[in-house]
Amino acid sequence: MSTFFAISPRVEALKKTLSDFVEFECIPAEAVHHKQLGREGSAERWKSLPSVTEHLKTRAKSLGLWNLFLPSYYPESPGLTNLEYGVLCEIMGRSPIAAEACNCSAPDTGNMEVFAKYGTPAQKQKWLVPLMEGKIRSAFAMTEPAVASSDATNIETRIVRDGNEYVVTGRKWWISGAGDPRCAVYLVMGKNDPDNSNQHKQQSVIIIPADAKGIKIVRPMTVFGYDDAPHGHMEMIFDNVRVPAENMVLGDGRGFEIVQGRLGPGRIHHCMRAIGIAERALEYHLLRITDPKRTAFGKTLSQHGKQSFDIAASRMEIDQARMLVLRAAATMDAKGPKAAMNEIAMAKVIVPAMTLAVIDRAIQSHGAGGVGQDFPLAYMYASVRTLRIADGPDEVHTVQIAKHELKRATALRAHEQKQLGNQKQMLAKL
Amino acid sequence: MSTFFAISPRVEALKKTLSDFVEFECIPAEAVHHKQLGREGSAERWKSLPSVTEHLKTRAKSLGLWNLFLPSYYPESPGLTNLEYGVLCEIMGRSPIAAEACNCSAPDTGNMEVFAKYGTPAQKQKWLVPLMEGKIRSAFAMTEPAVASSDATNIETRIVRDGNEYVVTGRKWWISGAGDPRCAVYLVMGKNDPDNSNQHKQQSVIIIPADAKGIKIVRPMTVFGYDDAPHGHMEMIFDNVRVPAENMVLGDGRGFEIVQGRLGPGRIHHCMRAIGIAERALEYHLLRITDPKRTAFGKTLSQHGKQSFDIAASRMEIDQARMLVLRAAATMDAKGPKAAMNEIAMAKVIVPAMTLAVIDRAIQSHGAGGVGQDFPLAYMYASVRTLRIADGPDEVHTVQIAKHELKRATALRAHEQKQLGNQKQMLAKL
Amino acid sequence: MSTFFAISPRVEALKKTLSDFVEFECIPAEAVHHKQLGREGSAERWKSLPSVTEHLKTRAKSLGLWNLFLPSYYPESPGLTNLEYGVLCEIMGRSPIAAEACNCSAPDTGNMEVFAKYGTPAQKQKWLVPLMEGKIRSAFAMTEPAVASSDATNIETRIVRDGNEYVVTGRKWWISGAGDPRCAVYLVMGKNDPDNSNQHKQQSVIIIPADAKGIKIVRPMTVFGYDDAPHGHMEMIFDNVRVPAENMVLGDGRGFEIVQGRLGPGRIHHCMRAIGIAERALEYHLLRITDPKRTAFGKTLSQHGKQSFDIAASRMEIDQARMLVLRAAATMDAKGPKAAMNEIAMAKVIVPAMTLAVIDRAIQSHGAGGVGQDFPLAYMYASVRTLRIADGPDEVHTVQIAKHELKRATALRAHEQKQLGNQKQMLAKL
Amino acid sequence: MSTFFAISPRVEALKKTLSDFVEFECIPAEAVHHKQLGREGSAERWKSLPSVTEHLKTRAKSLGLWNLFLPSYYPESPGLTNLEYGVLCEIMGRSPIAAEACNCSAPDTGNMEVFAKYGTPAQKQKWLVPLMEGKIRSAFAMTEPAVASSDATNIETRIVRDGNEYVVTGRKWWISGAGDPRCAVYLVMGKNDPDNSNQHKQQSVIIIPADAKGIKIVRPMTVFGYDDAPHGHMEMIFDNVRVPAENMVLGDGRGFEIVQGRLGPGRIHHCMRAIGIAERALEYHLLRITDPKRTAFGKTLSQHGKQSFDIAASRMEIDQARMLVLRAAATMDAKGPKAAMNEIAMAKVIVPAMTLAVIDRAIQSHGAGGVGQDFPLAYMYASVRTLRIADGPDEVHTVQIAKHELKRATALRAHEQKQLGNQKQMLAKL
Repeated sequence: MSTFFAISPRVEALKKTLSDFVEFECIPAEAVHHKQLGREGSAERWKSLPSVTEHLKTRAKSLGLWNLFLPSYYPESPGLTNLEYGVLCEIMGRSPIAAEACNCSAPDTGNMEVFAKYGTPAQKQKWLVPLMEGKIRSAFAMTEPAVASSDATNIETRIVRDGNEYVVTGRKWWISGAGDPRCAVYLVMGKNDPDNSNQHKQQSVIIIPADAKGIKIVRPMTVFGYDDAPHGHMEMIFDNVRVPAENMVLGDGRGFEIVQGRLGPGRIHHCMRAIGIAERALEYHLLRITDPKRTAFGKTLSQHGKQSFDIAASRMEIDQARMLVLRAAATMDAKGPKAAMNEIAMAKVIVPAMTLAVIDRAIQSHGAGGVGQDFPLAYMYASVRTLRIADGPDEVHTVQIAKHELKRATALRAHEQKQLGNQKQMLAKL
Repeated sequence: MSTFFAISPRVEALKKTLSDFVEFECIPAEAVHHKQLGREGSAERWKSLPSVTEHLKTRAKSLGLWNLFLPSYYPESPGLTNLEYGVLCEIMGRSPIAAEACNCSAPDTGNMEVFAKYGTPAQKQKWLVPLMEGKIRSAFAMTEPAVASSDATNIETRIVRDGNEYVVTGRKWWISGAGDPRCAVYLVMGKNDPDNSNQHKQQSVIIIPADAKGIKIVRPMTVFGYDDAPHGHMEMIFDNVRVPAENMVLGDGRGFEIVQGRLGPGRIHHCMRAIGIAERALEYHLLRITDPKRTAFGKTLSQHGKQSFDIAASRMEIDQARMLVLRAAATMDAKGPKAAMNEIAMAKVIVPAMTLAVIDRAIQSHGAGGVGQDFPLAYMYASVRTLRIADGPDEVHTVQIAKHELKRATALRAHEQKQLGNQKQMLAKL
Repeated sequence: MSTFFAISPRVEALKKTLSDFVEFECIPAEAVHHKQLGREGSAERWKSLPSVTEHLKTRAKSLGLWNLFLPSYYPESPGLTNLEYGVLCEIMGRSPIAAEACNCSAPDTGNMEVFAKYGTPAQKQKWLVPLMEGKIRSAFAMTEPAVASSDATNIETRIVRDGNEYVVTGRKWWISGAGDPRCAVYLVMGKNDPDNSNQHKQQSVIIIPADAKGIKIVRPMTVFGYDDAPHGHMEMIFDNVRVPAENMVLGDGRGFEIVQGRLGPGRIHHCMRAIGIAERALEYHLLRITDPKRTAFGKTLSQHGKQSFDIAASRMEIDQARMLVLRAAATMDAKGPKAAMNEIAMAKVIVPAMTLAVIDRAIQSHGAGGVGQDFPLAYMYASVRTLRIADGPDEVHTVQIAKHELKRATALRAHEQKQLGNQKQMLAKL
Repeated sequence: MSTFFAISPRVEALKKTLSDFVEFECIPAEAVHHKQLGREGSAERWKSLPSVTEHLKTRAKSLGLWNLFLPSYYPESPGLTNLEYGVLCEIMGRSPIAAEACNCSAPDTGNMEVFAKYGTPAQKQKWLVPLMEGKIRSAFAMTEPAVASSDATNIETRIVRDGNEYVVTGRKWWISGAGDPRCAVYLVMGKNDPDNSNQHKQQSVIIIPADAKGIKIVRPMTVFGYDDAPHGHMEMIFDNVRVPAENMVLGDGRGFEIVQGRLGPGRIHHCMRAIGIAERALEYHLLRITDPKRTAFGKTLSQHGKQSFDIAASRMEIDQARMLVLRAAATMDAKGPKAAMNEIAMAKVIVPAMTLAVIDRAIQSHGAGGVGQDFPLAYMYASVRTLRIADGPDEVHTVQIAKHELKRATALRAHEQKQLGNQKQMLAKL
């Protein structure tokens, strides 16, 4: 990395500790995790939990790698800036089991942020504390099967006040983490005021304990052919689920606001973890094409000219994208999430597409092995592919970026008029 | 389709019958097939067979859609040209269960071609007849885990003569079809003369019955999480497997030749089926973005400008690629497989990449649904991704195309000299 | 080329004659033409005409290569189908001076078609005859500087009836061919009924002799620094230009119709000539990288792996695009221009972009030479770049292709309903 | 810009002054410059000099914007870091006449650096002083027409010692700046020891006054159709040109070293100026598509969905590329040019291709206007296209980047072994 932006000695030390933990404890534990989970498709995958996860969590705590994520503007924070935490996210992203080991995995991080930012003292006590201790897990239920989720105003789930309770009814899918037996709480988005003339005041977010009556887990959704157990992406039904009125977060009609606030930092984290994935895929690529046993037509693959262009493309794309994400993080640190919104949108669009390209090249270099289970590449591809859709598809963010740019047109036109005025004067003197 | 190339009335009628069969019998049966196969990952998937497959096979026979594939230069052929059969392949490609229903699925088609082209009368009687009747299935065992398979000279499996027998020892993986309980025979590629100075005379192809001693199915390989049961892609060990000497195909050291001959038509079939997949993916794309219930920001997705460019790109890419494959088929018909080799290589490189792009756009238009199990898109993507690797990765074929082109340079240089001579004369006259 | 589509022996013979003429007479004459034109930027370029052009025209006439373009549905036609003429266009496209030598160059071909299709006997006598004899040249004045020309309804030029005359007033630019001293006639598009509620009935096309009073050639426009003399792309003013009423083509308000009819075949011709350019660029590319004197790091450029991928990409892109254009031509032959509209639009979008990519790779292989005047590559790039804009920019055609595709959605939805009905029945039986 | 990296208040002030100068003095003066130069192609373009240039130079001096370029490790430097100067280069890049106005234009900057770094006191007095005062200009003569210039060992120009003199003989082309009547000195690369077994010790760089006997300017090369007068890119012959022995720079055989040292910072400058070009092209794009007078089909172009994706793509690509260049500059500041070599190579590959894409989208939005002389876009395209070739083509740098990456493979393999060891231990405990 360059000296382009400053990392404090404390964070440099954290990087080193985290990197050793991820490289020599988490990555070697992946095979254990896989084995303890059981056969893909079997029902027990959703019941028992790999003991290696708890072991790694204990290790992370003892190494001072626990709960690194919370931004510095919360009292519970370890005091890392978004930029600093972003750098650590890249390291955690390298292993699919590292973020949870450090209690830094989505959607818990975003949910903890919601509790920390908007929760009442009672809500914090009940949910934030055990979440931060890693004793329970959580899910955020927003996406619905029947409508275009890229537009949040389409939400069909209803949250109806009934005395001292709210009654929640709706169907959700792709609820990540809801498969985990430790998942104890859902943050559910629905409309309690569907006729409000302000489309962004119709939604609310409400807390629903996982053991509430009327909740039905319909099925796990698969990503390509992967089930992501025990975490999972569930389809689920909320059928007249009743919760006390105090479970409403922030107040009626504040749901859109909560979601917006939650997403900024989360997108940076996702992007930086994806960059970690890209780096690891590139390493597989490098190892494969320099493997002295894998010669084709008398040369290692790296000696075939095309591979140089693939490797260089991956390196250039990763480095460009990383700088953009870190810049967005730095802007968020300096000026707050709103000012960084456009830069975050760019990162959100660029990083997943870039990572997919890098992984795809690595897959191609592995031949049939690349699409199978002996290398993590196909699984990486599948998980990163969802990032082009989750939290708003590329298209929505791209349009936002364009709108931001188009806002400059009026000032540019005035600027041009001034230039043309000067030009006219100059030409007149000739 | 255009009137660019002629399709006979007989083949037009076949197209219609086949299309109706695929659209209204096979595609609706996909859900049945899925259900009959059992839960992804469960062991029974590899044991029982969906009865719907046998039902469809009976239907296809009664409709005259059985064994359409064999090229016209074989006596067993129904008399279709490669071009004609290619057009039908596109239709079969639209449903993952249609080709088998018509007994036209890989790797059986290629294997039947090997038996028909190179088999002794006894080999034909024993294996070709039941294959053509759809009573058994087969596999072709070539790829090995330990070496760069893009270079066939790397094969490590050994075929050693011992009296009236051959003894076969080696490890293979990605042996498609070997998971099927009906798979009765393997064509296995190995070296029986590893020290032959002619690198293309070292290999042989030998027939091994699936029930021979010493065969061990190690595990199913997965493609992006999918197991492709009951067909499957198996890792397997041949541990001192003994077969009678008459099981050698064509003769010692003819393996490379057999593989080359087998691949030409097969690549056309794969490409045309992929084009069928691309068309179906585009149809999902069109249906999704015109769905009146899926509005975002007050418009159907098709009314957002970006979608027009995605749809048009998919249409243009499909149409271009199809013409190229059909041209290759026509060249093969007119001049034989060798003359068509370069055109086939182009199709082999272009079609999978194109199809992946078309599917990916369709996935993106479906949001989270696109990567899950409710639409066939993610599965399509996974299966087509393997085509960029199978039968030689893109890179190998691309280099071949370039070599073919570079051969023109000498003649071009002479041509240019003649032009420059004329130019000199003309300038001299000025 | 393949045997994919049939070329008659007569056209095969024409191809051979034309190819020899282009390769060994036109291409060697390019340097002569360049020299006779005079220094780039000098005023005399617009006055005198290279004598080599007249020499080549005489040769083409004597070889039977004159006026090949007119489609077979005109009495004046040499009887070639669009497909056949398309194949010849590719050959003519290889040299920038070949099409004019054969009297087959734009915009004359399109203008002759207008006269042939819509002209009165008197108009034909006066303009079509000398055009077909190559005695005069012509221009089509449509594009205007002040409005978005991609939308023809924006035209601001006015054609006002005044007694037995029309008075034409407007500013046009990029009027190709108007720089040529032999340019004797303009077909001018303007509005004579700007308030017609039917936006496509407001425009008319009128014949204006080049020597009419009130015409002012403002300046030549340059294309990436090239002036394209003597042909040129002129900015010009029609200032109250008066012509007799009989100069109106087809009748008041028929302008849109005329333009539409004119463009279909013309786009095919442009595309096939562009493919000829692409082939010639690829030949330069091949010659350069196999040049034994141009070694880098001890190898000819062709031995550097990357070049293989560039060469193969160019070959595949050209071959795909050619098939698409020829298919469009065949469709036009079989079913008329309207039925071929969508296929023509695809060709129009694909071919220029493809050709630019092929040329750009060739430029890159030539180092600094590639952008300079010693190779025709930079000039090729500049001229083909205009094709992504002329006759409607890519974007307009792409949207048309998408609209055509989206029209299928309703039928597809009915089709899907039938499939789902069958599926339901099948599942019910399980 | 972000707060990602720190810019000192002094440099912020310089940015403001420079920006005002470029926007409101240089850009408006472009039309004057163009007019004073005379008609493209005319001979006088190479003789007289636009007075507006001298006027702007006086202005720049008075504003403290003179000679900003020299890196801080030279005594003559204004003390800007590479990062700081890079930021200013972007601003200067916005106008093609701004860099010269500030005496910061290539190839003078690189040549001044050579004199400052390697020159004797006498050489500095004679050439560096007037160059820094803007009284003369200079050229660097390296590229040759007959060989592959991407490999510097191919140089054919000879520098032969003869008593107290050197005799230089060779043919050069694309010698930028050699057309300028003020060009007083050439730095010429040639071989004085062509048989040295160390291929990088064969070359020398020697100083040749422009008025030396035996120099012949053959012709100006054009870039696409532009001549870039008065600067120009000349083909020239050195025919037994004699210079005193003290004109050798640094010593015999040091030429390769000089060239390497010269190029690092120069590439950063080129890249940052290109980013300035990209930003200005994007501004033209924005102005065009929001122009209320240029509606198509009832909307401004910006309301057509495709434009949003074009605009957003340009914005994202520019921002990514800029961060990469600035990172390379920061690395050069912190660790010297050698340590930054890989990052500079990435910038060199990425920025020109990115800028071309941005300009091309802007061209497309302008219709025919985009390729002509009324907007600077086509000229921008032509000049930036040369950057993919100059100072080594993309391919050479890409291979370097890949080599740098491939060097990691050995360490990665050891790292992987350690991971696999840990994994084995963990699995054994299960």
